Parts: sequence; C-alpha cells; structure tokens
Amino acid sequence: MIPSNGLCVGLDVDLSKIPLHLRGRADAIVAFNEAIIGATRHVAACFKINLAFYEQYGREGIDAMYATRELCGTSYVIADAKRGDIGNTSAAYAKAVFDDLRADAVTVSPYMGSDSVGPFLAVPNKMVYVLALTSNAGSHDFQRCMVDGEPLYERVMRTALAWERRADIGFVVGATHAAELAALRSSFPDAPFLVPGVGSQGGDAATIRSANGTGPAVYNVSRGLLYIDATEDFATTVRVEAERLAALLA
Amino acid sequence: MIPSNGLCVGLDVDLSKIPLHLRGRADAIVAFNEAIIGATRHVAACFKINLAFYEQYGREGIDAMYATRELCGTSYVIADAKRGDIGNTSAAYAKAVFDDLRADAVTVSPYMGSDSVGPFLAVPNKMVYVLALTSNAGSHDFQRCMVDGEPLYERVMRTALAWERRADIGFVVGATHAAELAALRSSFPDAPFLVPGVGSQGGDAATIRSANGTGPAVYNVSRGLLYIDATEDFATTVRVEAERLAALLA
Repeated sequence: MIPSNGLCVGLDVDLSKIPLHLRGRADAIVAFNEAIIGATRHVAACFKINLAFYEQYGREGIDAMYATRELCGTSYVIADAKRGDIGNTSAAYAKAVFDDLRADAVTVSPYMGSDSVGPFLAVPNKMVYVLALTSNAGSHDFQRCMVDGEPLYERVMRTALAWERRADIGFVVGATHAAELAALRSSFPDAPFLVPGVGSQGGDAATIRSANGTGPAVYNVSRGLLYIDATEDFATTVRVEAERLAALLA
Repeated sequence: MIPSNGLCVGLDVDLSKIPLHLRGRADAIVAFNEAIIGATRHVAACFKINLAFYEQYGREGIDAMYATRELCGTSYVIADAKRGDIGNTSAAYAKAVFDDLRADAVTVSPYMGSDSVGPFLAVPNKMVYVLALTSNAGSHDFQRCMVDGEPLYERVMRTALAWERRADIGFVVGATHAAELAALRSSFPDAPFLVPGVGSQGGDAATIRSANGTGPAVYNVSRGLLYIDATEDFATTVRVEAERLAALLA
C-alpha cells in the first residue's frame, strides 16, 4: 500500500524550536505533535516520523515517538530511519519499525545492497523507500559518481527494481534536484517517490510538483511547516500553511 | 581515541538464542549481556552494541541497551548504528549515540556524503567508522561498482580521508574479503579498521589477522561467540573461546 499523493508532514521535533509556552512541559514533544497532527491531518497524505529527532532525547524521546505514532491513528506513517545492515540485523530493524512502531513504510540506505534491504521488503503490505538522490549537498559526493555511464543513484534505482518484491519499492528523491527528478520520473513513471527538502532546504513546492507530473509522490515538509509560528496560536497558522501546501502539492 | 587492536565482542542480543534458563526472565537481555561482558572484558579490546538488536524489542529493548552500556563500564564501546542523514538529522543521531548512549565510536553509512558524516565527526574524541566494504553478499551490488577506475568502496575511503577531522575516521571492512582487506591496508596503512564478519559470517580469524598485518584494527565476533553454549555454564565456554580468539587476533 502506497500513501496517497500530496503533502507529507514531517514530525521532526526540536525542543529548542517549539512554542515557548510548551517548552517547560514534561510532555512537550507529545503535546506539540498532537497539535501539529490535529492541524494537518485533514490535508496530509501521510506523516513522517524521523527517528533521529526522538532518539536524540534518549528513552523519553523514544516513549514520545511511540506516543506520536499512536496520535497519527489511521493516517499513513513513514518511519524515516535510513537503516540498512547485514540480513539478520536489517530483520531486527524491520521488526522495530514495522512491528513495534507500526509504521506503514520505511526509508533505507542502499549502500549495503540487496540482502540489507530484503528483510524490510519481506514484511507484507509495507513500502520501502530506498535512498536514491537525497536533498542535501553531500548527495554530490557519491550518489552522482558515474558507473558505466549512469550516475550511481540511477544504478541504485534500476538495480532495486530488478529485486523480488519490487512492487513495494519506492525511492527518496530530493526536492532540491527538480531537473533530475523530472528525468527520473520519465525513466521510472510508476515508481513511488518520497520527496523531502520542500521549504527550509530550498525545494519549491510548485516547481517540484510540476517536475514530478503525474507519478505517485509525496512531498515532505518539516521545519518549513512546524516552526513558522512560535505563539500560543501556532496550530492555526500551521493549519493554514498546511492547507496552502497541500493544494500546491495535490 | 581509537580502541586497542584485537577482539571486538559484538553484543547482538537475540532472545531466541540465549540459554534456556535465562529466557523467561524479565531482565533476560541484561542478565545475558552481564554474563558475556564479565566473561570477555579481560581480553576484549572493545564491545560493539548493535542498536538494531535492542530496537527490535521496543522500549524494553532500548532500556536494556542503556543498561548494557553501563555494564561495559570503562571499556571502549562502539555503537553499531550505520546511521547517516542530512546535517540536522545526523546531528540528532550523534547526540543519541554519543551523549545519551555514551559510546566512544559509531558506524555510519557514506551514501549521503560529507554533510551526513560531518555532525558525527564534529563531536570531539569520538571515532567514526564509515562503511567501506561490508561483510555481506550485498556488498557486491554497489560497493564494488567501478568509479573512474576504482571500486566505490575505495572512492569512499579516499574521499573521506580528505575531509576535515579525518584523524577521527576509520572504516568498516568485512572479514569475508581477506584479499581486498590486505590491499586496502597497503593503500591506507594508518586507517583504523573495524572488521566484522569473523565466525558465523565466514571470516576466519587467523586469515584476516594476517591479511591486516600491523595496521590498527579490531575484529568483531558476535554470534560465533555469544551462542556457542546454551547450557547454564555458558559463560565459562564463552570465556575460553574469547581468550582463544583474542590470542589469534592480538
């Protein structure tokens, strides 16, 4: 099952950025996320839980991550984990994100190859977004290395789509690379894309939506939505901005 | 600070494999690890905590991971996390493994490039082991792709050693590739290597120790040491085997 097309709301919690009136509270993370989820779920195609932002707060952060997943309810949830290890270890990560966290999809790194991704694909009815061309500047270092006349990120995509269970494979393609995304969409018309980097990272919503055309895609906004208003009425501001972005990205 | 050369004991806990008499206990993970650490710390150069094996047990697993790190005490601890994300996210992962878990070193994936590794390197007095040529069969899929006449794993190593704070960079090179490891040691005589895959994965301790020669290296054994005896006296068996391996790998 892939998410509907449109806006993905990235729940990248950062206690130094949430509204002041919430900061002192013991349940600050959950209270903030509850407000964000409530303000956006009517227009969000899915939510993305980035595990790093919870792990950074230790055991309390992990508890808040599980609570946040419960708050997402029946909405589609992507665990942005970028995991990948040898087979038995990837199987343990798959259990963590799919059985324990109950995510619908996960992001994984392709560097360790097919048997590092396989255990995630082996879980039925889950999507696996493989990193292809990421949104950051460091994407130039290795992802664009030319391999037999094609960039590594394209080699990764072609290779992955030859694996078993390829129907459950999607790709992470950053919003900061509109021209490359348009070319990839042309080469892989049916592959689901998870497109991060809209907003704070520089990706423009209308531009990237146009570059993708009609293929299946969700576009993630995190900082550019969550922290646009630090007042007590932040949820109203977030709601309006989410509706604007969702309309652009539909 | 790099670990001493020699045996790395991988604390890959698996509740389906630990001795029967411990399985029913609520504190089974910690009790098992306490016995393993006690039986091996006198010959272990370091311990490796593979986060997946704790995350798979949800919040209780995370609690057990923190408790296990405390049991390691002043021994050198590698957090085998294989993380890597955009800058602010990698910074959150760095906080999780170095500040919260108090690891001395971490493993990271190079796929997302310099700014995904940088936040780990920015933490002083910590080692960052970048995945180069991993021990699994999937290492053939992308790591061996030829880039301008050299395999990607070698491109990764050369590129990383040109980054700032390169003194804190080491590499993961699997024990299942003895010939390549010997060649890499010749090309990079001073780079610290973390060599997984000795034992169950097929790497032979004496062969890989000889292939490495005199360069700084730790060799990880997990399943091939932890689960060799399921009786109540397993700790004695593990102690003898750890001493044998440590002598081979010194």
